Amino acid sequence: MIIDVHGHYTTAPRALETWRQRQIAAIGDPQATPRVSELVISDDEIRATIEENQLKQMRQRGSDLTIFSPRASFMAHHIGDFQVSSTWAAICNELCYRVSQLFPDQFVPAAMLPQSPGVAPETCIPELVKCVEEYGAVAINLNPDPSGGHWTSAPLTDRSWYPIYERMVDYDIPAMVHVSTSCNPAFHTTGAHYINADTTAFMQLLQGDLFKDFPKLRFVIPHGGGAAPYHWGRYRGLAQELKKPLLRDHLLGNVFFDTCVYHQPGIDLLARVIPVENILFASEMIGAVRGVDPETGYNYDDTKRYVDAAALTPPQKAQIFAGNAQRVYPRLARVLERKGK
Amino acid sequence: MIIDVHGHYTTAPRALETWRQRQIAAIGDPQATPRVSELVISDDEIRATIEENQLKQMRQRGSDLTIFSPRASFMAHHIGDFQVSSTWAAICNELCYRVSQLFPDQFVPAAMLPQSPGVAPETCIPELVKCVEEYGAVAINLNPDPSGGHWTSAPLTDRSWYPIYERMVDYDIPAMVHVSTSCNPAFHTTGAHYINADTTAFMQLLQGDLFKDFPKLRFVIPHGGGAAPYHWGRYRGLAQELKKPLLRDHLLGNVFFDTCVYHQPGIDLLARVIPVENILFASEMIGAVRGVDPETGYNYDDTKRYVDAAALTPPQKAQIFAGNAQRVYPRLARVLERKGK
Repeated sequence: MIIDVHGHYTTAPRALETWRQRQIAAIGDPQATPRVSELVISDDEIRATIEENQLKQMRQRGSDLTIFSPRASFMAHHIGDFQVSSTWAAICNELCYRVSQLFPDQFVPAAMLPQSPGVAPETCIPELVKCVEEYGAVAINLNPDPSGGHWTSAPLTDRSWYPIYERMVDYDIPAMVHVSTSCNPAFHTTGAHYINADTTAFMQLLQGDLFKDFPKLRFVIPHGGGAAPYHWGRYRGLAQELKKPLLRDHLLGNVFFDTCVYHQPGIDLLARVIPVENILFASEMIGAVRGVDPETGYNYDDTKRYVDAAALTPPQKAQIFAGNAQRVYPRLARVLERKGK
Repeated sequence: MIIDVHGHYTTAPRALETWRQRQIAAIGDPQATPRVSELVISDDEIRATIEENQLKQMRQRGSDLTIFSPRASFMAHHIGDFQVSSTWAAICNELCYRVSQLFPDQFVPAAMLPQSPGVAPETCIPELVKCVEEYGAVAINLNPDPSGGHWTSAPLTDRSWYPIYERMVDYDIPAMVHVSTSCNPAFHTTGAHYINADTTAFMQLLQGDLFKDFPKLRFVIPHGGGAAPYHWGRYRGLAQELKKPLLRDHLLGNVFFDTCVYHQPGIDLLARVIPVENILFASEMIGAVRGVDPETGYNYDDTKRYVDAAALTPPQKAQIFAGNAQRVYPRLARVLERKGK
């Protein structure tokens, strides 16, 4: 049993992107705004985009279930206002829900939120509620920087985020901390902004005491935790200087890292430094890095191979591949029961 | 022979900070601006702050020579205008020069630049020239984000930086890419902003073709290269998608990483992933992480221990400890000749 906690619908039918372009073009010109009903995507189209892409690779690589959310780089919360984000999030979340209905044994939805720079996070709650209650979402993606690389939001430990956290705790769902496209030319989206956001979020959590207020809140830091595991000594030392408890006590009951690290030495470091119970299998396939690594002959993002080859016992690998995900995403249980697993 | 390429004068006499506070308080009130001559620091004061701190630890740990630049977090290029930065940089650089005169066998200066947000980098050239020609600086610290966490500058591959690069090539000096204090509450200075800047700069260089224009330009990315080595597969894959040459050919003739990674697994990864000739010994002592690691009983930033313990041959360690620094910082030669080494 292998659960991939980090997949996005990067292969959605072209009509989605076309509709979004029309929506963006109409910002400031309400007359030109396309209606949601103008976006028509058939079940067959969805099936084709999944079967030929994610599902094909899941079968080839041997993973069973993907937690599936809208394309991260397309969230683009910095574009338009809350209404623009709200309509867009609803469309994208519904599509992932439809994927999960068409492939109920292989895909479980996670929701993007209709965040917008300068708008209170609590405005996202209706979409969150709908996705959990109606679509069966088992997690959300939370963007710590809806400005798209200008970092104008308060840190994740700020009370403005608390309404989201209260709902997360109520529903017992985790958030993956995931930014979107960078509109700041200093930051390449997947090469700098994503990784920086992971590192930044981890340090925000380290600086604060958020989990005193929310002992059951859980965050997954994607892309192997950004730079955090590589600099684990630095973070242990900074926690010490900030008079925080040991990282294990301060953060590791609530913070988890995925395995989207695209080479063996990176996964080996992750497995060496971070307790096994805090590592969740993921590939972000099909995502930022789609090529074949000439050094191995396999896709960079075929992260299962790296976990397979890491110095871990079979029970430890089982934890990383599935056990931890079941613990961190308890709402997966219904899906797994249905699968008889 | 052990050369530490990354030390800052973090222990300067208190009078320096007091003068700086007066300078900052007087921004917008020229009458109140303190005169440079009002800052009086004696040779004995400098000696004491070095002997009791950096030099003491260099002796204990067994390093011989430190490339020494002004305190990175105090550069604070975002404060005031170019004139404020210019006066401040001149003061800080002169102090490091005086350290190098008082301890000519142990400290060699590297210069900070009087950068200021929105001001053309070429304005920094007179200070650069003075520091190289009069103070014997062997390198500069270049801040890719003088805004202090708002990232308003063009990427390092932009032509606005070229006048600096031309001088670097003329003088055959490298730049360490080093930001300063974050004034953005999203970014903890040493826990997020420093590491993000390293990752960001690396990705900017990956995206561009700067070294086609400047084949001899050299950058040292500090703090072990930010997240880059941990995500080396990601960066190899992104280079491939961007149709760039292999990283070895595209960047590693010009980009080097220091060993400011404060635990054994991090250094082991660095040594496993990055060619030995691209790794330069450094500790950033006395810097961001000053405590003793309870897991080892030694200072987190005692990076020599990690390099000593890494799976490297004695000649490889000699390269990391000194040989590479001599190649990347050729102006060190004069100092080393004087030391008879």
